[in-house]
Amino acid sequence: MTPKLGVCYYPEHWPETQWAQDARQMRELGLSWVRIGEFAWSRIEPRPGVFDWNWLDRAVDVLGKAGLSIVLSTPTATPPRWMIDKYPDMLAAGADGQPRGFGSRRHYCFSHAPYRQESVRIARLMGERYGQNPHIKAWQIDNEYGCHDTVLSYSAAACAAFRLWLEEKYGSIEALNTAWGNVFWSMEYQNFEQLDLPNQTVTEPNPAHVMDFRRFSSDQVARFNRAQSMALRKTTDLPLIHNYMGRITEFDHFKTGQDLDIASWDSYPLGFLEDRSDQGEDFKHRYMRCGDPDFQAFHHDLYRAVGRGRWWVMEQQPGPVNWAPYNPAPTGGMVRLWTWEAIAHGAEVVSYFRWRQAPFGQEQMHSGLQRPDGSWAEGAQQASEAAKEITALLQNGADISPRPSAAAIIFDYASAWAWETQPQGAGFDYFRLIYDVYRGLRRLGLSVDILPPDTDDFGDRKLVCIPGLFAWTPALQRAISTFKGHILAGPRTGSKTQEFKTPPALPPGLQNFSCKITAAETLRPSAPLGLEKGGAFHIWREWAETSEEVTETCADGRPALISKGNINYLTGWPDDEAMRRMLAAICTVAKLSTSVMKGGERLRDFGDFQARINYDTRDVQIIKR
Amino acid sequence: MTPKLGVCYYPEHWPETQWAQDARQMRELGLSWVRIGEFAWSRIEPRPGVFDWNWLDRAVDVLGKAGLSIVLSTPTATPPRWMIDKYPDMLAAGADGQPRGFGSRRHYCFSHAPYRQESVRIARLMGERYGQNPHIKAWQIDNEYGCHDTVLSYSAAACAAFRLWLEEKYGSIEALNTAWGNVFWSMEYQNFEQLDLPNQTVTEPNPAHVMDFRRFSSDQVARFNRAQSMALRKTTDLPLIHNYMGRITEFDHFKTGQDLDIASWDSYPLGFLEDRSDQGEDFKHRYMRCGDPDFQAFHHDLYRAVGRGRWWVMEQQPGPVNWAPYNPAPTGGMVRLWTWEAIAHGAEVVSYFRWRQAPFGQEQMHSGLQRPDGSWAEGAQQASEAAKEITALLQNGADISPRPSAAAIIFDYASAWAWETQPQGAGFDYFRLIYDVYRGLRRLGLSVDILPPDTDDFGDRKLVCIPGLFAWTPALQRAISTFKGHILAGPRTGSKTQEFKTPPALPPGLQNFSCKITAAETLRPSAPLGLEKGGAFHIWREWAETSEEVTETCADGRPALISKGNINYLTGWPDDEAMRRMLAAICTVAKLSTSVMKGGERLRDFGDFQARINYDTRDVQIIKR
Amino acid sequence: MTPKLGVCYYPEHWPETQWAQDARQMRELGLSWVRIGEFAWSRIEPRPGVFDWNWLDRAVDVLGKAGLSIVLSTPTATPPRWMIDKYPDMLAAGADGQPRGFGSRRHYCFSHAPYRQESVRIARLMGERYGQNPHIKAWQIDNEYGCHDTVLSYSAAACAAFRLWLEEKYGSIEALNTAWGNVFWSMEYQNFEQLDLPNQTVTEPNPAHVMDFRRFSSDQVARFNRAQSMALRKTTDLPLIHNYMGRITEFDHFKTGQDLDIASWDSYPLGFLEDRSDQGEDFKHRYMRCGDPDFQAFHHDLYRAVGRGRWWVMEQQPGPVNWAPYNPAPTGGMVRLWTWEAIAHGAEVVSYFRWRQAPFGQEQMHSGLQRPDGSWAEGAQQASEAAKEITALLQNGADISPRPSAAAIIFDYASAWAWETQPQGAGFDYFRLIYDVYRGLRRLGLSVDILPPDTDDFGDRKLVCIPGLFAWTPALQRAISTFKGHILAGPRTGSKTQEFKTPPALPPGLQNFSCKITAAETLRPSAPLGLEKGGAFHIWREWAETSEEVTETCADGRPALISKGNINYLTGWPDDEAMRRMLAAICTVAKLSTSVMKGGERLRDFGDFQARINYDTRDVQIIKR
Repeated sequence: MTPKLGVCYYPEHWPETQWAQDARQMRELGLSWVRIGEFAWSRIEPRPGVFDWNWLDRAVDVLGKAGLSIVLSTPTATPPRWMIDKYPDMLAAGADGQPRGFGSRRHYCFSHAPYRQESVRIARLMGERYGQNPHIKAWQIDNEYGCHDTVLSYSAAACAAFRLWLEEKYGSIEALNTAWGNVFWSMEYQNFEQLDLPNQTVTEPNPAHVMDFRRFSSDQVARFNRAQSMALRKTTDLPLIHNYMGRITEFDHFKTGQDLDIASWDSYPLGFLEDRSDQGEDFKHRYMRCGDPDFQAFHHDLYRAVGRGRWWVMEQQPGPVNWAPYNPAPTGGMVRLWTWEAIAHGAEVVSYFRWRQAPFGQEQMHSGLQRPDGSWAEGAQQASEAAKEITALLQNGADISPRPSAAAIIFDYASAWAWETQPQGAGFDYFRLIYDVYRGLRRLGLSVDILPPDTDDFGDRKLVCIPGLFAWTPALQRAISTFKGHILAGPRTGSKTQEFKTPPALPPGLQNFSCKITAAETLRPSAPLGLEKGGAFHIWREWAETSEEVTETCADGRPALISKGNINYLTGWPDDEAMRRMLAAICTVAKLSTSVMKGGERLRDFGDFQARINYDTRDVQIIKR
Repeated sequence: MTPKLGVCYYPEHWPETQWAQDARQMRELGLSWVRIGEFAWSRIEPRPGVFDWNWLDRAVDVLGKAGLSIVLSTPTATPPRWMIDKYPDMLAAGADGQPRGFGSRRHYCFSHAPYRQESVRIARLMGERYGQNPHIKAWQIDNEYGCHDTVLSYSAAACAAFRLWLEEKYGSIEALNTAWGNVFWSMEYQNFEQLDLPNQTVTEPNPAHVMDFRRFSSDQVARFNRAQSMALRKTTDLPLIHNYMGRITEFDHFKTGQDLDIASWDSYPLGFLEDRSDQGEDFKHRYMRCGDPDFQAFHHDLYRAVGRGRWWVMEQQPGPVNWAPYNPAPTGGMVRLWTWEAIAHGAEVVSYFRWRQAPFGQEQMHSGLQRPDGSWAEGAQQASEAAKEITALLQNGADISPRPSAAAIIFDYASAWAWETQPQGAGFDYFRLIYDVYRGLRRLGLSVDILPPDTDDFGDRKLVCIPGLFAWTPALQRAISTFKGHILAGPRTGSKTQEFKTPPALPPGLQNFSCKITAAETLRPSAPLGLEKGGAFHIWREWAETSEEVTETCADGRPALISKGNINYLTGWPDDEAMRRMLAAICTVAKLSTSVMKGGERLRDFGDFQARINYDTRDVQIIKR
Repeated sequence: MTPKLGVCYYPEHWPETQWAQDARQMRELGLSWVRIGEFAWSRIEPRPGVFDWNWLDRAVDVLGKAGLSIVLSTPTATPPRWMIDKYPDMLAAGADGQPRGFGSRRHYCFSHAPYRQESVRIARLMGERYGQNPHIKAWQIDNEYGCHDTVLSYSAAACAAFRLWLEEKYGSIEALNTAWGNVFWSMEYQNFEQLDLPNQTVTEPNPAHVMDFRRFSSDQVARFNRAQSMALRKTTDLPLIHNYMGRITEFDHFKTGQDLDIASWDSYPLGFLEDRSDQGEDFKHRYMRCGDPDFQAFHHDLYRAVGRGRWWVMEQQPGPVNWAPYNPAPTGGMVRLWTWEAIAHGAEVVSYFRWRQAPFGQEQMHSGLQRPDGSWAEGAQQASEAAKEITALLQNGADISPRPSAAAIIFDYASAWAWETQPQGAGFDYFRLIYDVYRGLRRLGLSVDILPPDTDDFGDRKLVCIPGLFAWTPALQRAISTFKGHILAGPRTGSKTQEFKTPPALPPGLQNFSCKITAAETLRPSAPLGLEKGGAFHIWREWAETSEEVTETCADGRPALISKGNINYLTGWPDDEAMRRMLAAICTVAKLSTSVMKGGERLRDFGDFQARINYDTRDVQIIKR
């Protein structure tokens, strides 16, 4: 693998006379890839059916001839204004039922069939024109699905599509009533036309109703993406990519990713720290100019799984952004560190966003590699440095491709929906739980793989963690049954059926593991439950009846950790101290060697190398193993 | 009186084969009552006019023959989906004007006349079928009026009904304009059709307008309940009951209760502590597994008044619930303690909710006496223990019926509406004020009666507290004039007329008591106003001009407590320390013997006994007096 | 100048028999002016086209004959209910698109042309009847424009008017697309009919779109006011006044003020402290009974500028109000102090709100000079005292007219809109920035003038501060170029073009000042950036490249203050300590003598006098200079 650097560019934002110099400067900086086109629909098709391809032809030509490989994007995240005239009902609606307006981006409902056809049409036309263009080396479909809370739509189009989806799933209304348990509160339906979206109910709707709406909504994203993917495949053999965002759990990336060749994501470490982190104020203050030491790595590992091994950073933060509550600049060196970290996790391309800071529009306060006046911004120098270092490392044919990690975590989007539907207590969040375990493993110096919930073979791994999985899949049950390494399940794992019911024999439903969860408690922040060996459970704890070995006990005498052979079940959500101790203990049993990391230190094994990354000192060393 | 225990049961949730065993186990556990039917409409009338009574006949038969007395409920809190097809406009609307949706419960507007007729129809049909059934021993109408914020509806049906209600009340639009003072801000109406509901105004609407809307909304609940009550009375002589919720002040329970024979309420001590308490974090932490030591008692006393002596706990929390921000399990012993506490306050029946934890639907995380797999949950053992203890106590014909308490508090729903309409400062809440006084009395070891605002004779009581009463009623003025005991009025008592105007002679309007409230201040939490004898006023304080004796003085020299004979007026909201001292002083004068309670200790006198309850130690002792 | 005291009075609220006594008591108290009529439309025109002038004729007569000068108001802030019947679409709509309802006040959309004509009609009719009445000495138009968030309306009328406004401004849709940079995110329009208001977009709308909506909304206020002004001018030569509110920045008061003769504002020091202050809890506690020591003065200075020298306090708080989160009473002496402070800042009239506390309607808890029963409230005595003191001071022909201050600040409403549109970080607020500088100058004992952004000559001033000005005006650039005194610009000054773009040569764009702002950071509250000489930047800081002298440096070595000759540029938002030090240093260079104020001490020079005001001791002394 030979990782490359790239950049996002908007030729339509700049005078054509500037394009050639921009392209030359990109190459000089050490960049090989350039992404274009994802917001350019109004320039490609200024009026319905009236096209202007010429400028894009020329832009492709100028960039390609300068030696850049181009990612061309379909522009479907920003349908032009005339599209709304054509389909006034294509707008998504919020949970309050109000349609969202034109004037920013992502203003479409995934369930609106005519707009889906329009998106196929423009994708097909672009494919026909550029599918065989020698400068184009990959395609991006749409942009940041789910960003700005756009997966869940409560529009009439969504309602109609949901009814069809339910009818297809259940066949008869009686089957739906039974599956959902609609006898509870007289919620039984007589026909599918009576089904509404689960918003604006008097009190909480049936969780089975919500869960199906969440599944449906996720499926609509996959369907939208698949439609464009199929259109493009007819015209090109190049890899298809989508650029996902950080901590978006509203749709199943694994499912959407099945129709794509490469996964990519948009990495904004400082924006995400301020805007999407569960950490407290002290942590945010400490890392305000570096980012959370695990957030980037987690998504790198996640999207490596989504891309079945192939993944990019499509947008890499190069300086201050414009959209978080506070927008400081990264400390010197962080752009280089983030670049190297992505490469250590297996990125094929790291592409900075954006080439030059825009002087107009919504993101005029978002930095680029160049300032609005064309002078170099701070990030450019670090990108250049990283480019040279990568070239140097690879000079002697070094192998840097990712290898399977000994430790893995199952990540299941449906579980995120399940526990958002039924948190049972403030603060229970699936992503946070998974992320706490991930961080716990990384603080022990481990490299970690993220695995999808349809994994049916854990391979030679030594430890697989399955916290918070809402319902077992047959695949996972098969994987566990043949696995030689250690399993850590719980809390809350297997506590529902796929129908969102309590399993008749009570959770967790681990085979050949005699244990019943008889009750669950959610705990206020002031009331963690101490563990006898130190640390505590917080947020969530369960009461277990078991005849297996109780390895750890809570301060109130109830089981905290239950073990039998290679199976371990955790009855609560460990705090930092307990997480560290319990994971270390399991690693010891699982013969997984660990080393305690301090503060922002992290290790990542890749190919023949180990990256030693330190978010406190902004240092990254690539060591031959 | 012979108190009994009971349970809530949903035969429609379980296979018919399980009913007989369930009934037998109920009896074995010591339960005598079972409530059924309140959410079963979709099974009784699966399609409009198509009935299936058979299953219910059999369920009644099985339960009855097992020796259980049945409370049968009308199912009108959960109209089936086809009802919405029939009357799409029957849904209540929020203050934003948006109709609420089907898919949970309580999805009807109290003002929708056709739905009210449907509710009468189903009540009549049930009455006709089961009114003389020997196993049925009482009826429940609907379920938890007002829960999930369902009293105030801003629907078209509510608007139309409000206009009629106003026309009936005022006769002419001129009378309304004068009563409301609509000349203020040119708000004068020319006809009743111009009247809107008081939502979505630019700034606050006229408080007189809001107050009438609150009265109207409360009346609609009473009217809805009365309609069903009248239908049932034609078919049965059994007592009619409604199960109220905790801290619901949106409708006048005294008025609604006039059409019923027994009041009951649903007691969820831990859920209420987390969700509906004004206490701070420390308090909530301390009592997170016990509940607030006064919350249950207050409602027991309140509903004893609403039921004119006859009251039940219809739903008693038996373990963790599913609806509060945090849902811990009760400490061992609390289910027994809560049961005994209810009995000490005069409950005829304490009925646990629910028999078996449901494996589906919205409340699948709500515990029951049995777990979803039919095994016994923790609460069952305590219920059984309580059942045996009660039997033991009553063996020798002991008298445990409630007696009037020497201390009483007036509780007036209209005052809650008034001060919600015009708080004048953040934090002023009528329920909280009443509850502070109630707790103050209970911390002095007193038993307390709650009295309605139409009480016209205080009997032999020694102290009656009337804090925060917004407007005098003729009844209360009569009661005061003939009362030999002590009155404690204020703050804010009598500060409005029934028309929501300032009384021409200024508050408080106590007869033969020379005192004028000339101004009121609301105080930020950091700025309590010290009292010379210790403690402070917080939230609210008044300036008084008086020629009566000033018994206590504020740090700024203004009167804090003004007394003349048996009449006392308090000019502010005492904090804990001041409340304790001032109430103790008045009790001394009123010759009411007190004893200082520590922490969660409380006393309750009933019949020949005194219950000594301790929320800190989870201990309850029943002592012969 | 001979300042006078006055009061707001509502004859329509009281029996006619009481008017004469009220008028006599006003005079006896020392009041000369009385304002009437601003909410009386429903009494003047009870039905469309049916008038009742008689009561108003008599009220004017009674008040005038008692020796009072009358301000007569147009009643257009409270259109009667029948107006809504006539124009159901005249109501403003919120950002959620929902129309606001009748039942309070200010229930009209400024863009609704027929209502604007109705307001002209009633103004004209009042002018025709009273324009030459000898008792009327001034006119007020409408009441508190913008209060209750009423400038921005998202109604259909607003949308239609916005499209016309845009077409007039840009001429062609291409010009709009270019000016706004709509190529960003394919937001290009094909015609003006496609333009929507910038609410309910998926993510943030184009800031240029929002900015034009803000300008439009402000223009609609000016247009509404101008229409009435023109109608009245035809019938009267008396001065026209509007009463503005505190900290309302949604419309440009300078523009609206151009059609009026006198600016006035409604001064509620305690309400504003609780409701509209950026200060912390400690500060609010300290001044809860006095008000913020700079808030009144700032608005006095602002409205003196808006009124081009002529200004009043139209409503002066006399006791507790009813609308803040907490409503305490002012400490004894504050009503007198506020009165004197206004006079020291040049007020021609200070008019108390209101004569007698209303016993009905929304403001029944708002104090007056009299209580509802007609007895004297606390404020009356202080008003009387102030009246006597003013008479005494002026006895010997003392000159108390305001003189230009040596220090000035530019206040620009458009900048408030710009930074509300694009704060770039939580906590960036233009008013707060301006106010911090104002307070900084006042803490140095200075008197300050506020100047509008079209000022083109700073006169003989020694220091003009221009913080946060979003875009340069030609006038200001001219003023700077000829100014001999010192300029303090920054942070963020000149950082946009009028089109809301980044200037091509980067900010700040000060002529002959070699400095480029290359990046900006927003800082979380826990992360202020220290300055080498003490204090810190918080909220906002910039990176500057400059070849001018760096007078102060940040802890990270970047420039904090850059100076060349009389031009100074500040790269961040100084905290209290840094503000004090930096302003003091610039004052020294500018030869502006200062004296450090402690706590609530302030000085104000006027005419031959200096007012020494102390908010801590409630003391005010008027010293001959």
